[in-house]
Amino acid sequence: MALLLHLADVNEHAWAERFRSALGNYPVLLRSDSYDPDDIRYIFAWKPSDDAFDGFNHLKAVLSLGAGVDALLQHPRLPEGVPIVRFVDDELTQCMSDYVIASVTMHQRLFSRYAAHQKARIWSQLYPPPATAISVGIMGMGQLGVDAARKLVMLGFKVNGWSRTEKHVDGVTRYAGDETFDAFLGATDILVNLLPLTADTRGILNYATFKKLRRGTLIGGPVVVNAARGGHQKEADIIKALEDGTLSAASLDVFETEPLPKDSPLWTLENCFVTPHIAAISSERNGARYFSQMLLDHEAGKPLRNVVDRERGY
Amino acid sequence: MALLLHLADVNEHAWAERFRSALGNYPVLLRSDSYDPDDIRYIFAWKPSDDAFDGFNHLKAVLSLGAGVDALLQHPRLPEGVPIVRFVDDELTQCMSDYVIASVTMHQRLFSRYAAHQKARIWSQLYPPPATAISVGIMGMGQLGVDAARKLVMLGFKVNGWSRTEKHVDGVTRYAGDETFDAFLGATDILVNLLPLTADTRGILNYATFKKLRRGTLIGGPVVVNAARGGHQKEADIIKALEDGTLSAASLDVFETEPLPKDSPLWTLENCFVTPHIAAISSERNGARYFSQMLLDHEAGKPLRNVVDRERGY
Repeated sequence: MALLLHLADVNEHAWAERFRSALGNYPVLLRSDSYDPDDIRYIFAWKPSDDAFDGFNHLKAVLSLGAGVDALLQHPRLPEGVPIVRFVDDELTQCMSDYVIASVTMHQRLFSRYAAHQKARIWSQLYPPPATAISVGIMGMGQLGVDAARKLVMLGFKVNGWSRTEKHVDGVTRYAGDETFDAFLGATDILVNLLPLTADTRGILNYATFKKLRRGTLIGGPVVVNAARGGHQKEADIIKALEDGTLSAASLDVFETEPLPKDSPLWTLENCFVTPHIAAISSERNGARYFSQMLLDHEAGKPLRNVVDRERGY
Repeated sequence: MALLLHLADVNEHAWAERFRSALGNYPVLLRSDSYDPDDIRYIFAWKPSDDAFDGFNHLKAVLSLGAGVDALLQHPRLPEGVPIVRFVDDELTQCMSDYVIASVTMHQRLFSRYAAHQKARIWSQLYPPPATAISVGIMGMGQLGVDAARKLVMLGFKVNGWSRTEKHVDGVTRYAGDETFDAFLGATDILVNLLPLTADTRGILNYATFKKLRRGTLIGGPVVVNAARGGHQKEADIIKALEDGTLSAASLDVFETEPLPKDSPLWTLENCFVTPHIAAISSERNGARYFSQMLLDHEAGKPLRNVVDRERGY
């Protein structure tokens, strides 16, 4: 029995150290170690190569470093029948809500407008609406969406939550399923995307969507915040909407191509706020703790938690 | 019996309409109306002229449009022995907390840094600390400070509250009195000023204060947010601190001279965020409702509320 790490673009040795100190006698291996593939019961994966899972016939689970598993589910030889466990973590949730609250409140307070005034040295007292007058619409009411929604409610915002299946959160107006999408958009001033990326949600942040958002409440027009995946957004549509006033501003943490190409117009639009996919990250400390406990519990006969539904896509 | 309005720089007629519809038969007068000064029991004042209170011998209270009464207390002929009532309002409190939350979270999320990176088209994934790692220090724990503190605690921040007398708020570390000021600053990453402006607090946001803030937790250095009065800040010190790295950023809604003079360096500092005294305002709707109810209650024999302590200065 052993855990194999298969990680790219992160410090694999640092992760191994964390796992070793959390797992005690349970073997933690890197691909460069020598081992019998039949001993490997768990693979902890991030950006795995195409042959990552070949020859492992006794896998009990694949553990995914990221909270989003859209890329992993596209893997060409992901072993069928092996459960995939995704990362669900309080610190990850905290960081995502931090990003959402910072983005929503800066737009509610008309940041773009005042930044433009400051640049032109204009003193013009247009009062931002109170949070109580603004509706935030959250797409995706999983662990991340629910936490952000609760915090926004507590700050005084009206909050709409749109999800595939109905979720109850105190103070949040519920919209479930495709047939409610237009009504949800029509009641929303600031749209926040926290959806998983699936065939159904790819490209959902497009011009037709933006046109359906409510106008007249937030001075300047509606706003879009995307903290989920670049695949959700059509960047040509965002640019058009920011330029023609369909959107007054956008905060984007993710992009169709990452890093965002140097020639993207998004870098220079003054009402677009670009961050380099740093809304919420999986820390080594918390990730190793979470997956080590999961592995030990599972070896002791307990069921896995946060297992991905491959059909649903998250 | 009558209420006299004495307002400058705002729409006095609109206020009169609001008061008339709230007060029914109780007379509401403007200075341009004819009246017997002995009938005036209440004066509702904003930026009153030097002779504003001369010849009124039956005043029962002066009602102040603003939540801050520092300017009114400097009035050269403010009648002694007449209570001054200041504006305390849920919407004003909501708006102030909106401003504080937006300012604190943008700095916690390293907004200045990412704005500079965006301008230079740099993709560099430095992760902001979670709110749980950051301490916000609030100076002034009146109605505004307490509401902002509660909301920051709920978002996950560590919160320190500094005030003249000890105030208990769940989850907030209390500091009371001058002798605790250095310890308060030394435990604070983001300093938020919501103090009343008095002889004791004038100029409190100065270079020596900034030097005592905690370094090493918030990437780039500590931050100052001033939403109270321009008289609290020494702008030459803020500029020096922003330029030499003592402060990593500042959000200023108030200034020594308002409107902020065109030649102020604050307009062009890229880590200084200027807004034109719009953090929180007294709306006609809420102000007329609040003071009308106060007046009717008082005429019915109930005590005034939110009466200013002239000695203390707020």
